[in-house]
Amino acid sequence: MSLVQEIVDVTLPNKKYQILIGPGLHQSLPDHMHSLQGEHVILITDDKVAGFWLKPFASQMSNIVSRLDEIVVREGEPSKSVETCNQLWQKMLEMGADRRTIVVALGGGVVGDLAGFLAASFARGIRFVQIPTSLLAQVDSSVGGKVGINLPQSKNMVGAFWQPESVIIDPLVLQTLDEPNFRAGMAEVIKYGLIMDDEFFHFLKSSVDPIRGRDPQILAKVIAWCCRCKAQVVEEDEKETSGRRVILNYGHTYGHAIENVFGYGTFLHGEAIAIGMTCAARLAMELGMVDSDFLKSQTELFLEFGLPVECPENRHDELLDAMKRDKKVAAGKLSLILPTRIGNVVSMAAPSDEKIRNSLVN
Amino acid sequence: MSLVQEIVDVTLPNKKYQILIGPGLHQSLPDHMHSLQGEHVILITDDKVAGFWLKPFASQMSNIVSRLDEIVVREGEPSKSVETCNQLWQKMLEMGADRRTIVVALGGGVVGDLAGFLAASFARGIRFVQIPTSLLAQVDSSVGGKVGINLPQSKNMVGAFWQPESVIIDPLVLQTLDEPNFRAGMAEVIKYGLIMDDEFFHFLKSSVDPIRGRDPQILAKVIAWCCRCKAQVVEEDEKETSGRRVILNYGHTYGHAIENVFGYGTFLHGEAIAIGMTCAARLAMELGMVDSDFLKSQTELFLEFGLPVECPENRHDELLDAMKRDKKVAAGKLSLILPTRIGNVVSMAAPSDEKIRNSLVN
Repeated sequence: MSLVQEIVDVTLPNKKYQILIGPGLHQSLPDHMHSLQGEHVILITDDKVAGFWLKPFASQMSNIVSRLDEIVVREGEPSKSVETCNQLWQKMLEMGADRRTIVVALGGGVVGDLAGFLAASFARGIRFVQIPTSLLAQVDSSVGGKVGINLPQSKNMVGAFWQPESVIIDPLVLQTLDEPNFRAGMAEVIKYGLIMDDEFFHFLKSSVDPIRGRDPQILAKVIAWCCRCKAQVVEEDEKETSGRRVILNYGHTYGHAIENVFGYGTFLHGEAIAIGMTCAARLAMELGMVDSDFLKSQTELFLEFGLPVECPENRHDELLDAMKRDKKVAAGKLSLILPTRIGNVVSMAAPSDEKIRNSLVN
Repeated sequence: MSLVQEIVDVTLPNKKYQILIGPGLHQSLPDHMHSLQGEHVILITDDKVAGFWLKPFASQMSNIVSRLDEIVVREGEPSKSVETCNQLWQKMLEMGADRRTIVVALGGGVVGDLAGFLAASFARGIRFVQIPTSLLAQVDSSVGGKVGINLPQSKNMVGAFWQPESVIIDPLVLQTLDEPNFRAGMAEVIKYGLIMDDEFFHFLKSSVDPIRGRDPQILAKVIAWCCRCKAQVVEEDEKETSGRRVILNYGHTYGHAIENVFGYGTFLHGEAIAIGMTCAARLAMELGMVDSDFLKSQTELFLEFGLPVECPENRHDELLDAMKRDKKVAAGKLSLILPTRIGNVVSMAAPSDEKIRNSLVN
């Protein structure tokens, strides 16, 4: 019996791969990870995920690989550093990694970004498989090929576009995800509905209870829907050159500024993004692009999943400055992604500072 | 008047660019670097090259760019380190680099590899222009897109395939190249004749004097010929997957072992490669693949350019061990590139240790 419930095909100019999604997939890895057969695999995870999931995944993989090495990094953003990278490049070398070695990332966004960049850069690029274990990673960071690490002054400043060989998603692993991170992941889930798919938005609205209960079948459906949305955008604009990919940044210019000003850790990324989308919707309303029903509808769904929708402090000038420093500012001009209706957003030049400042408060 | 004497087109699946070659090109950069027009450029060079060439190049470029920043690293291999990279990523950020910034590498192989990797990894990859100033870089490392840095235990272990926007080669800059490095570059020049073009080999044989005299017109012709050879190989096998690109490694498995055992710095890369090609030719003769005329002809041309052809010390077991550890050893099997005639080489499984050991001595 195959445990694959959903398959998402990702077709890029130079790479085609599949995202396999199914509750319980981790119990039948050998059936779904043929590319690892007989190979040297380096499994990279963090100490939090390792406690729950390293053994189940590693024991399955060890049945098919020729050699399995494990690297466990500390949980959290600081592991996405040049220092960690440097240590791990050397560790990979000590483990006998060569051009045929395959890196498997088992973890959330941090592990995926770090392991992906190690794979992209070791021996000028080796193969890479993603097994995302957080909701955020399953619906966002594991699709699209963005990998990278942080510089002290700037997140994700060093990296590559490096596509995986395949992505394996088991919604059962979300059973061990803490509530704040599950919630934060839902912000990105809802985002797909808002930016490109009203049908999905309404599906989420009608499925609040089973999603909150982490029903594996419903989650598989939700995750697959998100992956299809993201894959579609990425297929149109793999390397963020045509402009299509910017729609994924709905709420992100505000969100990054919030993370930046209030300090990483005060809000989870998804929480900051939920606040950011709320501000963006408020601005769109102020500009006459959407009516108050839009803002109400969006806000209600955020609140159903326990997401914050308000900036807690009065630091508007700092937030505005941080927004203007965002790395998506091209040639000094700030652009924002704003909604026109549920299921559609547009990129536009920012209006006056005054208007942006107003959008920060309810 | 255009100073471009030769143009080599490089056509890869996802990138097409030109190598412009001409004596005096550095005096008319604005005519040939249209892609820099109005852009933020970060020029990376080393302190040795800077002494001769930073001012002439920078002053030309500053006429067309919107902002020019300069980074000068220490001359030599240690600059290809993770530490230097880390410093320079941060420096680029401080200089306001973003996705539109263009990195220009002005220097030899070290500068090209380092600057290329910085460009490949900063903001997930930004544009990059090569202005190689050593003969080796002009005929080898600036063509083909290999960029990278070293780990303490292994050269070029971290890197990417990252193609430049264009390559600008002015043979006049070779006037300031020291004799040992000019000589070492000639080893790679002669290699192209040996591995794929007997006509080129005979052209070199008949042009020893003007080449040694660094006649700019002859050098432009020689460099263009090499770039065309290398481009042809790279076009067939950009990412070293089909196997075609391995022919470029003629002499390199021996050469890397020599560099490794005797210490980097004892021999320049090209010198080690010349010794390596001599050993490989000796092995091919032992195996009946070429006759003694081949070895004689190859050796004579090396000697004409002052290149070494003998291992100076009796450390054969160490050399053999180092060869077996070479990163081109696939699945534990050592392959060697051996000649069959002037203008052709083949890749084959290594014969007995005994035979390899014999090939190390004259």
